[in-house]
Amino acid sequence: MAPSALADPYPIPVRHYTKSTTQASVLVAPRQLVLENRTISDPAPHELQIAIKATGICGSDVSYYKKFRNGDLQAVAPLTLGHESAGVVVGIGDAVSGFQIGDRVALEVGVPCDSCRACQRGRYNLCPKMRFRSSAKSVPHFQGTLQERLNHPAKWCYKLPAHVSLEAAALLEPLSVAIHATRRASVEPGDTVIVFGAGTVGLLTAAMAKLNGATTVLIADIDSGRVNYALRNGFATKGYVVARHNLSNSDTADRLLIAKDVASEVVDVACAEEPDFEGADVTFDCTGKEICMQAGLYATRPGGQLIMVGMGTPIQTLPMSASHLKEVDIIGIFRYANTYPTGIKILSSGALPSLENMITHRFQGLGAARDAFELAGKTFDEHGKLVLKVLIET
Amino acid sequence: MAPSALADPYPIPVRHYTKSTTQASVLVAPRQLVLENRTISDPAPHELQIAIKATGICGSDVSYYKKFRNGDLQAVAPLTLGHESAGVVVGIGDAVSGFQIGDRVALEVGVPCDSCRACQRGRYNLCPKMRFRSSAKSVPHFQGTLQERLNHPAKWCYKLPAHVSLEAAALLEPLSVAIHATRRASVEPGDTVIVFGAGTVGLLTAAMAKLNGATTVLIADIDSGRVNYALRNGFATKGYVVARHNLSNSDTADRLLIAKDVASEVVDVACAEEPDFEGADVTFDCTGKEICMQAGLYATRPGGQLIMVGMGTPIQTLPMSASHLKEVDIIGIFRYANTYPTGIKILSSGALPSLENMITHRFQGLGAARDAFELAGKTFDEHGKLVLKVLIET
Amino acid sequence: MAPSALADPYPIPVRHYTKSTTQASVLVAPRQLVLENRTISDPAPHELQIAIKATGICGSDVSYYKKFRNGDLQAVAPLTLGHESAGVVVGIGDAVSGFQIGDRVALEVGVPCDSCRACQRGRYNLCPKMRFRSSAKSVPHFQGTLQERLNHPAKWCYKLPAHVSLEAAALLEPLSVAIHATRRASVEPGDTVIVFGAGTVGLLTAAMAKLNGATTVLIADIDSGRVNYALRNGFATKGYVVARHNLSNSDTADRLLIAKDVASEVVDVACAEEPDFEGADVTFDCTGKEICMQAGLYATRPGGQLIMVGMGTPIQTLPMSASHLKEVDIIGIFRYANTYPTGIKILSSGALPSLENMITHRFQGLGAARDAFELAGKTFDEHGKLVLKVLIET
Amino acid sequence: MAPSALADPYPIPVRHYTKSTTQASVLVAPRQLVLENRTISDPAPHELQIAIKATGICGSDVSYYKKFRNGDLQAVAPLTLGHESAGVVVGIGDAVSGFQIGDRVALEVGVPCDSCRACQRGRYNLCPKMRFRSSAKSVPHFQGTLQERLNHPAKWCYKLPAHVSLEAAALLEPLSVAIHATRRASVEPGDTVIVFGAGTVGLLTAAMAKLNGATTVLIADIDSGRVNYALRNGFATKGYVVARHNLSNSDTADRLLIAKDVASEVVDVACAEEPDFEGADVTFDCTGKEICMQAGLYATRPGGQLIMVGMGTPIQTLPMSASHLKEVDIIGIFRYANTYPTGIKILSSGALPSLENMITHRFQGLGAARDAFELAGKTFDEHGKLVLKVLIET
Repeated sequence: MAPSALADPYPIPVRHYTKSTTQASVLVAPRQLVLENRTISDPAPHELQIAIKATGICGSDVSYYKKFRNGDLQAVAPLTLGHESAGVVVGIGDAVSGFQIGDRVALEVGVPCDSCRACQRGRYNLCPKMRFRSSAKSVPHFQGTLQERLNHPAKWCYKLPAHVSLEAAALLEPLSVAIHATRRASVEPGDTVIVFGAGTVGLLTAAMAKLNGATTVLIADIDSGRVNYALRNGFATKGYVVARHNLSNSDTADRLLIAKDVASEVVDVACAEEPDFEGADVTFDCTGKEICMQAGLYATRPGGQLIMVGMGTPIQTLPMSASHLKEVDIIGIFRYANTYPTGIKILSSGALPSLENMITHRFQGLGAARDAFELAGKTFDEHGKLVLKVLIET
Repeated sequence: MAPSALADPYPIPVRHYTKSTTQASVLVAPRQLVLENRTISDPAPHELQIAIKATGICGSDVSYYKKFRNGDLQAVAPLTLGHESAGVVVGIGDAVSGFQIGDRVALEVGVPCDSCRACQRGRYNLCPKMRFRSSAKSVPHFQGTLQERLNHPAKWCYKLPAHVSLEAAALLEPLSVAIHATRRASVEPGDTVIVFGAGTVGLLTAAMAKLNGATTVLIADIDSGRVNYALRNGFATKGYVVARHNLSNSDTADRLLIAKDVASEVVDVACAEEPDFEGADVTFDCTGKEICMQAGLYATRPGGQLIMVGMGTPIQTLPMSASHLKEVDIIGIFRYANTYPTGIKILSSGALPSLENMITHRFQGLGAARDAFELAGKTFDEHGKLVLKVLIET
Repeated sequence: MAPSALADPYPIPVRHYTKSTTQASVLVAPRQLVLENRTISDPAPHELQIAIKATGICGSDVSYYKKFRNGDLQAVAPLTLGHESAGVVVGIGDAVSGFQIGDRVALEVGVPCDSCRACQRGRYNLCPKMRFRSSAKSVPHFQGTLQERLNHPAKWCYKLPAHVSLEAAALLEPLSVAIHATRRASVEPGDTVIVFGAGTVGLLTAAMAKLNGATTVLIADIDSGRVNYALRNGFATKGYVVARHNLSNSDTADRLLIAKDVASEVVDVACAEEPDFEGADVTFDCTGKEICMQAGLYATRPGGQLIMVGMGTPIQTLPMSASHLKEVDIIGIFRYANTYPTGIKILSSGALPSLENMITHRFQGLGAARDAFELAGKTFDEHGKLVLKVLIET
Repeated sequence: MAPSALADPYPIPVRHYTKSTTQASVLVAPRQLVLENRTISDPAPHELQIAIKATGICGSDVSYYKKFRNGDLQAVAPLTLGHESAGVVVGIGDAVSGFQIGDRVALEVGVPCDSCRACQRGRYNLCPKMRFRSSAKSVPHFQGTLQERLNHPAKWCYKLPAHVSLEAAALLEPLSVAIHATRRASVEPGDTVIVFGAGTVGLLTAAMAKLNGATTVLIADIDSGRVNYALRNGFATKGYVVARHNLSNSDTADRLLIAKDVASEVVDVACAEEPDFEGADVTFDCTGKEICMQAGLYATRPGGQLIMVGMGTPIQTLPMSASHLKEVDIIGIFRYANTYPTGIKILSSGALPSLENMITHRFQGLGAARDAFELAGKTFDEHGKLVLKVLIET
C-alpha cells in the first residue's frame, strides 16, 4: 500500500462524529491475540477521537506478545499493544480548539500527570505517574493503539503537514528516542560518533547524530545487512560489522578483553582520519548489551559521553575506571520529552533519510497482527529479506 | 588559478631551511601600501616558519587600509595586514614535533598568553594579553600575513588533509567565527534560524546553523545578489531582501517601527510552515547594525537567543523590554576559540558548501594588494559581478 | 502582629466548607479602592479555596494604584491587586488529593496553559496564555489576592512546613524572582557578584547569590539606608552608595561617562582583594534603570553575565561593544518558573536572612489597603523609618 | 605548631637567591624511605624556586609507601611523594613577573602540555601528557613535594592572601577535587545531597555542596567518628553511620540488596522533610567502593546525578537500569582544573569550615615522613584519636 493512500483523510465533514464501538486487537496470554469489540465513548472535553491508521511494532511489543511480559513488567490483564502510531481525527472534544475532523495526526501515547516536579520542569518522561499505552506498568493497563479508534488527549496529538505520511508519522515514536538521545548528548558539528546497534533506534540515532553535524558517524552491528542498509541509505558515514562472540562461558576478564578489542577496532575505523585520535566524542549504545556498554567506555575519548539508549541488561559489570580516569559521562535515556514537534519539523524538512523506506514489511488490518508480531522479532523474513520495521495499517 | 596549484607544497627536503629576508606588504598611512624587505630569523624552538600562500581580505583590513584605523583602534606604526591565511611549512623550530617541511597548514593568527583565567578555562579569545596579527591593538603591532614568510608558534598552526585546499584553509578564519557563534547559540535540529547579513561571516554562519540541524535558515540582506548567492549555493533555505531605508533623519521611535516591520516580515517568511509561530529560535546579527539588532530582538521567540556576531555600532538603542519580557538572551561573540580543528574536520568532510566558490576575486602577489583592498570594500566589481571574498595568493 | 498568630490555621474540620460570598479590595480608578462583596463558587474539581492571610505589596501594585496602569498595561476594568500571597485551605475540590482543610499554603498566582511549547519545556513563565493575578494583561483581568477568599488551582498551591510563617511565605513571590535570576546566572562558589538596587528583589537576589556560594556580593543603591540594611542583615558582603546624578539634561555620551565612573568605583570596591581583577563574574540589575544596565556592562568581566532582573526602561541605549568585545551575555528575567518548592526548602532550612524582618510595615484588613499602597511607594515612612516590604494581613 | 609560625616568610630580600642542593625524602621500595641530597639548578626562566613548608599526605601516597605502587601504577624508580603542598618563593626565573621573594604560594603540582585538545578547551586535567608530582605515571617520575626546595612553573603557583595559612593552602589540593566535583554536579540551592565517605575529600565535597546552597547534605560513612566530626564542624547537615557488612562471601544479588537497603535508609534520613521524596538530587561517592556506587544509583532521584569522585574498584557491577529508567547520569571525576584561584577565594572568605582543624596530626621535618605515612593509613591513632589529615611541615 502506498503512503499516499494512507494519507487520505476520512471524509467526515461535521465536528462531532463518533461511533459507539471500536474493534481492538487484544493480547490475553503469550502469543494469544483476540479481536474484541469495545464500547467507545464520545471524546472527553479535552480529547480527540482518532481513527488509527498505522502502528509500528516495537521490541517491547514483541516481548509482551511472546511472554506476556517485558523485562520486569508482567501484564496482569488483557493488553492491546502498539505505541508507534498515527491516525485521523474523527471526533473532537468540546474544549478542544485547533483541530478539525479529518486532520492527520501523530499520537504521543504517554500521558504524564502534568503536576509533578518532572512534568513541571519539562522532563515529563520521568513522571512517576506516567500512563503509557501498551505498557503493563500502570494498572489498569493503558491500552495500545492496535484499535480501530481511541480517545486521546488533544494535547498529545500533533497535526501533520500535508507531505508527511502517516507511515512516517508512526515512526515519530522511535525517532523521538533518537532526538532525545542526541539532545542529551550534545553532539557538535565535526564530532566523531559511534553507534552500537543498527535496529530502528540505532539507525535513527545515527541519522540524528549526522543531522547534529557529526562528520563521522560509525554504526556497528553484528548483522552486515543492517550495517549495509545504514550505509546505503545515508544513516551513517561508516560501518563496522562486529564478529559474533560466544560470551556465555567467558568470565568477566575475558569479556572485558573482547570489549576492549571491539572498541579498539571500531575506533581505528572511526578515527582513521584524525591525527592523535583518542576515541569517539560521543558513543551511543542502542543495543542494551553489557558488552557494548563496556566497549563504549573504552571507545570514548577523555571528556566524551557514553549514551545508554537501549533498554537492556539491568545489572552490568563495567570498567568504571575508564569513566573515572577519562571523565566519560554515562547518560541514561528513558523515552523522550518535547520531541514530537521537533520530529515533525525534521520530517517535514526532508533532512533525514526516508522513514517509509525503513518499513520493510506492512500488514493490513488488526487481523494480521499475529503475523506481524511473529515476523517482527526476526532479522530476516522467509525470503531472506532484511526485517527492519514492521507496520500494521488499519 | 586553480586550488590544486596552490596545494603544491614547496619542494624543500630538509628540516631546517630558512631564508634571512622576506618581503612584506606594509601599510604606512591611509591607502599607502609599500613593499618592504624584512629580516627574518630562524624559527624559535616552538615556532614554525611558514611560506604564506593565501590570505583573504577581511572588513577590518579594508578599514585599516582606508583610514589607518579600525573602530577605536588607531595604527601607530607601519602595519602589515591580513589574518585569514594558510601556507606551507618551510622551517621547523628545534622543540617542535609533528610537522615536516612541506606540510600545508592553516594559521590561527591570535596568540594568547596561555596563563590567564580566560586562557586556562578555554576561552582564550578573551585573553587580555592576546596578540593578534594585523590588529593595531597590541603595540608594537603584531604584523599580519601579507608577507612572503613569517615565524609562528607551531601550536597555532594546523596541518591540512590532502583534499583541503589552501584557499579554503584561508577561510578557516571567518569560518571559525561562524563555528564559535553557532556553538554559543546552541542551535538544535528542527530549529528556525534567522541570519541578518549575507557577507562572508553571515553566509558561513547560516551554513553552520544548517549543519547544526536547523531546518529553516533564513538569510536577510539588503543586497539581492548576496541573498541569491546564499540560496543557490545551499547556505540557507530561505532568503529575504530587506528594503533600504534612509535612517539618517528618523528618530528612535521611527527606527524602532521600521525594525519591527522588518522583523515581522522576516518572521512571516521564516515561520510560514509553523503553526502558532512565535519567532526564530535563534537570530544571528552579522551586520553590526543597530537596526538589525533591534529587528533581531523583535524577531526572536520567547526563550530564544540573539547572537551579536558582527562588530558594529558601539552604542546601540535597543528595545530591551523584548529581551526582558521574552527572556531573549543577547550573546556577544568575539572572534573564536578552539575552532580550527573542528573547522578542518568539517571542511574535510565536505559537509559545507564550497568555500573556494566564495572566493570571487583572486590577486597574485603582494604587489597586487592595493588592487585587492580597493575592490574588497565594494559589493560589485567593475563588471557588475558580486564581490564576496577577495584573496591574495603569494 | 506576630508571625505565630498568622500561622494558626482556620479551625475547620470538614473537607468541603465554603462560603458563598467573599470580600475584595477593588481598584476602580487611580487611587480609588473600594471594598466589594463578591459571590464565590465552590472550588472546581482541581481547585482549592484559600482564605488569604498575607499579601505583600509589589511595585507593580503601586503603579496600578497610582495610575490604573503598569508600564504598557492599562487596566480596563475593576482590578483586585496583590500577588505576593499565602493563606489557609478552607475548601477542597473533588479531584484534589494531598491537601487538608487548614493546610497553610503559598500561592503561585500565575496560571499557565500547560500545553504550549514553553509550558511543555518547563519555562512556563513564558507561556503566551499565562493568566497572572493582579495584572491587567489578560482580559477579563485575573483578580489579585487582596480578597478574603479565592479559588485557585491546587497545582499552584504549595504546603508550608510548620516553621515557615505565612508572612515569609507571602515573600516567596519576590524570592522566586531572585531564585530564577540566580539560576539563569550560573553563579559559582568564589564568584564576585554586583547587585544594583537594594529593594526587595535586589536584597533577595543578593542573598541568593551568597547562597550560591558567591564570596563577594556587593550591593549598590542610591539610598544608604537600604545598603546598610543589606549589610547589617547579611544579604550582602559589601555595599556601595551610588551618588545621585541628575541625568535629565545629560546627553548619551555624558550618561555613559557617568555609568563608566559608577562601574569603575563599584568594581574597585567589589574586587579589591583580587589580583588583576577584571570585573564582576555576574552583575544583576534589579533597578530597571538604563544607567545601571550601562554600568553593568562596564562592570562585568570578560565572559561574565549581566542579568536584567528589574522591569524598567523599555528602550535603552547601551554600550553594546562591551558585550561584544568581552562576550558579556545579557540575560533577561521574566518572573520565574519552578521556584516555589525550591524557595520553601530554602526558607525551611534557615539558609537566608529572615524574610519576616524585611516586612517593615504591616496593615490589618482589606480596609487598610489604601494606607498600605500610599506607603509602599515611599523610601521612608513619616517617622523616617526605612520602608522595605509593606504587607496586608487579612 | 601554630599556623601563624608557618606563615612567616623566608627573610630573603633579593630577587635571585637559590641554593645548589636540596634535601628530599625518597621512597626506594615498599616502606623504605631515605633522605637524599639533590642538586637543584636555578629556576628556569618561567619557574619559581619554592621552599616547601607543608605537605599533606594523600591516600595515593600511602599506597605507594606501602606497595611501591598505586592501583595499576607501579613505581619504576625512586620516587619522592607528596602533592598537597604550599611553600615560600625563594627564587624567581628571569621571565617571571608578579612574584616576589618571600611570597607564600600554593602549588598546583600537575603540569599539563598546554597544547592538546583538553588543555586548549580548559579541561587540562584530561591532558594525556600531564606530568603530576609524586605519581609514577610519567617516566621519569615527576618528583613530589617532600623536598626542601623545588623549581616549579610560576604559572602553576598561586599567591596566598595574608590570612590564608600555608597549612590550609596545602589542603587546596583535596579541596580542588571537591570544587571540581561540585562544579560538574551542578548542585543548586535547596538541593538534597548525599555524600558517601567522610574522609578528607568526602568532608570537603560535603562542605562544597553546602556552599553551593544545598540545604540538606547527608554524609554517610562506616565510621561514626568521622560522621560526628562532619556534623560537629559544619561540613554536613545530617549524618548516617552505615553498618559494616561482610561482603566477601555475598553474591551480586545479595550485595545489590544490601546496597538497596543502605540507599533506602539514607534517603529516608536525607529526605525526611520532603513530601513525595524521590531521592537525592545529587549523590557523591567519595569512597570508590562498588557498593556505594550501587547504593548511589538507588538513592538518587529521577533526573539526578551520581558523581564518581573516589578512585576505587576499577571494574564495578552496577544496577544500570536505575540509571536508564531514571535518567540518573554518572559523572566521572578525575582530579581538577581551574580550581586553585577559586579555592583561594573561598578560603580567604571564610565560607568553609576550618581546614586547619582537619589536620589532626602534624610531623616536623622530612625525617618524620616514615611516621607520618605509617599513621596516615589508619582511622585512629594510638591514643584513639581520629586521624583525618596528616601533614608534614618542613
